[in-house]
Order: sequence, then C-alpha cells, then structure tokens
Amino acid sequence: MTQLEAAKNNTITSLIRRAAKKEAVLPEFIRRGMSCGKIVLPANKNHKNLKNPCAIGSGLKTKVNANIGTSEACHNVSIELKKLDICIKYGADAVMDLSTGGDLVKIRKSIINSSVLPVGTVPIYETAICAKRKGCSIEDIRPEDMFDVVEQQAQEGVDFFTIHAGVTKASVEVLKRARRLTGIVSRGGAIMLKWITGNKKENPFYEHFDRLLDILKKYDVTLSLGDGMRPGSIADATDSAQLKELSILGQLAKRAFKKGCQVMIEGPGHIPINQIKKNVELEKKICNNAPFYVLGPLVTDIGCGYDHITAAIGGALAASYGADFLCYVTPSEHLGLPDAEEVKEGIIASRIAAHAADIAKGIPGAIRSDLLMSKFRKQRKWDKQIKMSLDPEKARKIHSRLKSRVNIQDVCSMCGEFCPMKVV
Amino acid sequence: MTQLEAAKNNTITSLIRRAAKKEAVLPEFIRRGMSCGKIVLPANKNHKNLKNPCAIGSGLKTKVNANIGTSEACHNVSIELKKLDICIKYGADAVMDLSTGGDLVKIRKSIINSSVLPVGTVPIYETAICAKRKGCSIEDIRPEDMFDVVEQQAQEGVDFFTIHAGVTKASVEVLKRARRLTGIVSRGGAIMLKWITGNKKENPFYEHFDRLLDILKKYDVTLSLGDGMRPGSIADATDSAQLKELSILGQLAKRAFKKGCQVMIEGPGHIPINQIKKNVELEKKICNNAPFYVLGPLVTDIGCGYDHITAAIGGALAASYGADFLCYVTPSEHLGLPDAEEVKEGIIASRIAAHAADIAKGIPGAIRSDLLMSKFRKQRKWDKQIKMSLDPEKARKIHSRLKSRVNIQDVCSMCGEFCPMKVV
Repeated sequence: MTQLEAAKNNTITSLIRRAAKKEAVLPEFIRRGMSCGKIVLPANKNHKNLKNPCAIGSGLKTKVNANIGTSEACHNVSIELKKLDICIKYGADAVMDLSTGGDLVKIRKSIINSSVLPVGTVPIYETAICAKRKGCSIEDIRPEDMFDVVEQQAQEGVDFFTIHAGVTKASVEVLKRARRLTGIVSRGGAIMLKWITGNKKENPFYEHFDRLLDILKKYDVTLSLGDGMRPGSIADATDSAQLKELSILGQLAKRAFKKGCQVMIEGPGHIPINQIKKNVELEKKICNNAPFYVLGPLVTDIGCGYDHITAAIGGALAASYGADFLCYVTPSEHLGLPDAEEVKEGIIASRIAAHAADIAKGIPGAIRSDLLMSKFRKQRKWDKQIKMSLDPEKARKIHSRLKSRVNIQDVCSMCGEFCPMKVV
Repeated sequence: MTQLEAAKNNTITSLIRRAAKKEAVLPEFIRRGMSCGKIVLPANKNHKNLKNPCAIGSGLKTKVNANIGTSEACHNVSIELKKLDICIKYGADAVMDLSTGGDLVKIRKSIINSSVLPVGTVPIYETAICAKRKGCSIEDIRPEDMFDVVEQQAQEGVDFFTIHAGVTKASVEVLKRARRLTGIVSRGGAIMLKWITGNKKENPFYEHFDRLLDILKKYDVTLSLGDGMRPGSIADATDSAQLKELSILGQLAKRAFKKGCQVMIEGPGHIPINQIKKNVELEKKICNNAPFYVLGPLVTDIGCGYDHITAAIGGALAASYGADFLCYVTPSEHLGLPDAEEVKEGIIASRIAAHAADIAKGIPGAIRSDLLMSKFRKQRKWDKQIKMSLDPEKARKIHSRLKSRVNIQDVCSMCGEFCPMKVV
C-alpha cells in the first residue's frame, strides 16, 4: 500500500504519525487531508534514512524546498553534501538533487543516504545527460530510456519526482502561438519540448501516464507535476501556454490521485504581485486542491544577485493565499550555481516567507515564535533573542559588533540609552 | 511660497519640473497631486545641494528612504558620509539622519551639504540628547527647547521632519489600556510619552501645532507625522493605540495641508501580511490620501539578522496596495547600528520591493526594466544583464565564479549546455 492508499483506507501510518508530531497537529488531520488529495507525504519505501518526513498541503505549515546538486562546472560530491548539511541545519523541509554534472548515480545515492529530509529529483535530467554522454541528441532518447531512469531512481529511494508531463503536443502548439518574451525557462520543459517537436511524437510521460504511475506506486514516490511552461519573465506571466499546461496537469493530477499515487503541482515562476492570488486560486480549482509547489514566484525580473529576496516576496504572498510548498531561490539564481553560503541565504529567505504566510493564513501555533521573540525583545534578553534567531551566528555577530562601546548593558548599539523599551 | 502653495496656485516650480523629469511624468501631474495633498516634494529652501529632488505619492514610483546616522556606540562622521555615498550609489530616494551620538550639528550639516537627496531628521532626538548632556531628564525638557531644535534644524536645510505629534494625552490613555506585548518601540514616541506622562501635560507639538507649522512653512520643510504608537510586534498590530494615533494624525494632516504645509504620514511597523491592505486603506481614508511612508512593515517578528527581507515582503505588499514611500530596514534591525554593507543590503531589498509594487500597481514604465532584462536573458547577453543589475559587482562575481569551467561561452554555470534558453 502507498501512503495515499493507507490514508484512503482510514489507516494512520507511522510516517503520518511522525509528520503529525513534527507539525503539532493530530495524525487524523493529515490522514484526512491525504485521503482527499489536499496533503502529500513524500516518502519512498526505499529511503531508509528519512527521519524527518514532512507532510505538505492545506492547513499545514508552509514547507520549504532547497535545490542542491552539481553542474558541469562543479561536480564535487562533498560540496553537495555540505550543502545538504546546511539545508538540514537551517530548516529546509525537503531537498531536490538537481545534479547535472559528474557521477549522477553516486552523487544521488550519497544525498539520499545522508538526507533525513525527503529528496526530490527531475529524472529527465539524467536521461538527457546519459544520451549526451553517449553522443546522442535529446531527440534520440527512447521512451524506454526515460522510464528506465524513472524506475532506477525510484528504486534508489527518491521521495518525489518532478515530471514534465504537461508539456504535450497540445500545450506546445499553444506555446508557439503565445509570443513569449522568454519562451521556455524550465530545463525539463525545454528537454521535453525538444523531444516532442524533434520526433513529432507525444510526450511519453503523458502518453504512457499509467505506466509512470505504476512505477511511482511501486516505490511510493510522490509525483510533482512539473511546470515546463512556467513563465520566465513578468511579461509572460499567466499566459495561454502556462494555463494550457495547468489544465493538463489538473487532469493528470486527478488520474494520479484516483490510482493511489500522491501528487502535487509545480507552479510559476515569474509572476507580478497582482497576479499571484489568481494563480494560486486557479491551481487549487483546476487541480482539485492538490498541494501547490511554487518556484518563487519572482515578482520582478531585475533582481539578479538578490533573487532570494524577490522570491521571498512572491513566496510569502503565494503561501498566504494558499500555496503549500515554496521552492527556495538563491542569490545566484539567473547567474550561476549557488555555493553553500547562498544555499543558506536562500533557505532563510524562504523560511521567513513561509512563516510570514503561516501567520497570515492562521496556521495554529505559527505566531507562537513571534510572541516569544517579542517577549524577549521587550525584556531585552539578547541571548534568548539571538538563540531563537534563524541564524544565531549572524545575529550574534551583528549584535556584538559595537556592543563593547555601549555603556548600558541591556540595550543595543542602535538606540543605546534611548532604547524605547527602556525609556518607557 | 512653499512648494505646496505654489502648486495650489497653479505654479509649476523648477523643483516640480526636475522631479517630474526624473520620474518621466508630466510636471502638471505632480503639481496637481501636490495641490490636493496626494503628493509631497520635500525640499527645504536652504538645502542648496538638493540636486535629486523626489516627489512622493499617489501615481508615482514608490520611493525608498535609507536611515543613516551615528549612535553613542559609533559616531564617526566619515563612516556616515560613506553610508550616504552608498545610499546615492544604490538608488535610495531620500535619507534620514537619525544620529544620536557625537557632534550632532556637525554630522547633520555634513550630511545635508553632501546629500543630493532629500534629508530627513527626527528633531526630538537632538532635543533629548541635549537635555541628557546637560544632566537633565526627558521630563525636564521645556517646550521651548523642542521648538528651538526644530527651528535650528529647519534653518540648516533639513527637507522633512518626523514629528510625533500624535502621541498625545488621549492616545497615551488608549495605549495604557491596550495591553500591548511590546509597548512603544518608536524612540521618538517613547520620548514624547515619557514627557507627557512625567509632566502630566499635553504634547507641545500637538498643543502648539500651528507654531510648528509656521516654522516648517518658513523653510518649506515637509512634515512627516511620526507613528510613535506603531506596533513593535505582530501581536500588537492594528490595535486601538495605533488606530487612535492614526485618527489624530489624520486631523493634523488636514490642518497642515490647509495651512500650506506639505505632509505625509508614517506607518507601521510590525504587521502580518493579512492586515497590510487594511492598514494602507485606513491611512488613505483617514488622512485624506496624504502620502503613506511605511517603516517596513515587518511581516514577522522572528527575522532578526534578515529583517531587510522581512521588510521587503511587507513593503512590496504595502506599496502594491498604495503605500508611497518605504523606509528601508537593514539586516541589523533589532540587533545594532548597521554598517555600510548592511545599508547597501537594506536599500537593495527595499528597491526590489518598491519596483515589484510599481509593476503591480501599474506605474507607467515600471515594467520596462523587466522587459529589457528578460530580453538580455533570453539572448544570453550576460554583460548587459550584469550591467543593469541592482548590484553589478555582486552579479558579476557570482556569474564569473565557475564560469571558466563551463565549456560553452554563452551559458551560466547552473545549467551549462542544458540552458533552456539554448536548448529550445
């Protein structure tokens, strides 16, 4: 039985119990949400080290995913394991291994073995890289190759897969007429589009969707339906191509759920602030309230170097309207592969966004940490404020920088004796 | 004549013309907005170096203010002038000198003389510090001392003053009953409260408001009505004390406008995402559409070390609903005095928020830079993307970090040859 089948069967699994404990909700709340497709619990049967399972979806805290992984330019497995440590330390709820360089299987296995968090991948990356290494082009990939990689990665223990099954002949036709500024900006989407147009054939994941579901069910991999047509610029936001793909994803999500396969939906991308609410509402409506996993969204195109902030704005807003899972964005987005420090900055920015949204949408208990922090602030208990910070090391460094030059002990170097907490 | 009197008199001043040119709107648009109090143009007659005047208000781009200034712990004027350079370089529209340490007059004069941007201050700081240096307490300050400092700073060329005239006997009474978690967190507000309760007298700026306006008019200083009762925690947001003060500010704003004195309203503070819209709407309604100058708002209390991000989320949202002027927040907020690097980070985060809001509220031309950046992105013109970044130095550093290890020239180290822009 998959977790979803168990939930539908009124069974509370030990994974549900653990996720509920972490969340401080009743296991029944999660089971019920799973049983109607509003909540997923990505947990591959073969991911033995999954000590921190997380439930994602409606009524729960907004979760944060951090992308790690090598590229052609840098494929040192120990660097990626260091990034994984940072993900765990700074509170990511899940990680995706998006490696495209080096020994992909070895890197992935290392990450899965070391990760107490759910691990996601995009199997088509490996498929495309293997083809390339054999001197083949994307168009030369056989559907068999695609499914083989999916099965192999599922067997290794990946907890959720991004599959771009919504990039189809039909959505590609719409894309062609869409007159986009930035076309396709999803790597997986671009690969599928090239394959479809080069072979004049349907997307194998769409055409043989039941075969895909059978593999996912066997290992209980959660399906994350990728948004290959996500807008890569504000100008392209919420356009016909994006919406066509979303409608396809809605149909596929229903089929997956019916078959006992957990499913969530990936979302944009670059979206201006005034279109975020509509985007969340559309996803929930079209996809039967399947959890919404947004990539940002980035609320302007000009933030490069600081796109963790651009994404935090969009992510906070999206989550306050009901998005469930935020894919972090690092300061190096649009510029290059992030380093470990940028991974940290991305996670913290996303966690701030997720938490701010949780307060806004009234997640029970979310405001507790704010109450506590503010109490310590009022009492001028600096050590306690610092200890409960998202990054105590940084907070301490800033606080102590000029502290020795302040005559009074319980104030900071900003206000000194004019600390309003102290004056009143 | 003040700028406001000129505008009411159908006169387009040279300052209006310059502000309009910078903004790419017709001077008449600004004049009309000023004449009905929806736009202010802070420009003291004695600020000779004000080469970059900025108009703030409805229909215009959202502006960004950066707070600089010394504290008891660090009062080196050259450090503050370096921060001022950073404000100008990274695109702040105004600066406030919030100095509380060292030779306040000398520091302020240096900043005014060096600043091509409008400069704001909070005169009550100097009043309180002078009292303290004379061995007096806040309660010992005479109303005369308050007005003397206001006049002196106005004469020196300060373009806008934060005056906490809404902290009155009546609002203090409401505050007492409000059972706040964090009480008063405004330095100016705390000083006024202590004075009022200690002396059992009315706030002199409230009681002798016309006297204040006469000074401001004489030098054409824009009045920024301070929110001494702003919430300092999510728990205190939009409470009775905050709203009582806002209603007082609304009355004062109307009196100031009527008398020919430019006026804007300062706003919170710590506000959860779901209360931001209401806060902006209330200010606009109660204060007759006077420009709204928000301090953040911070959408959670737990972001210390990263409060520039917490504030960017709130600022973007507030501005998209109609707030006009964002006071930046730096990573050192709640912890200590910011250094130059943190000033830079604060400005950039606020500028992202302001720009994202301008796209959302449809400010003409705002999206142009996004279109351009995305065009260069699609064309993989990296130099052009980097040059038009908010922080080209940082963008270049990230982009070039692993670039030498990528075989193909026109892609980045993230996707390499799988760059979706290139694949398709």
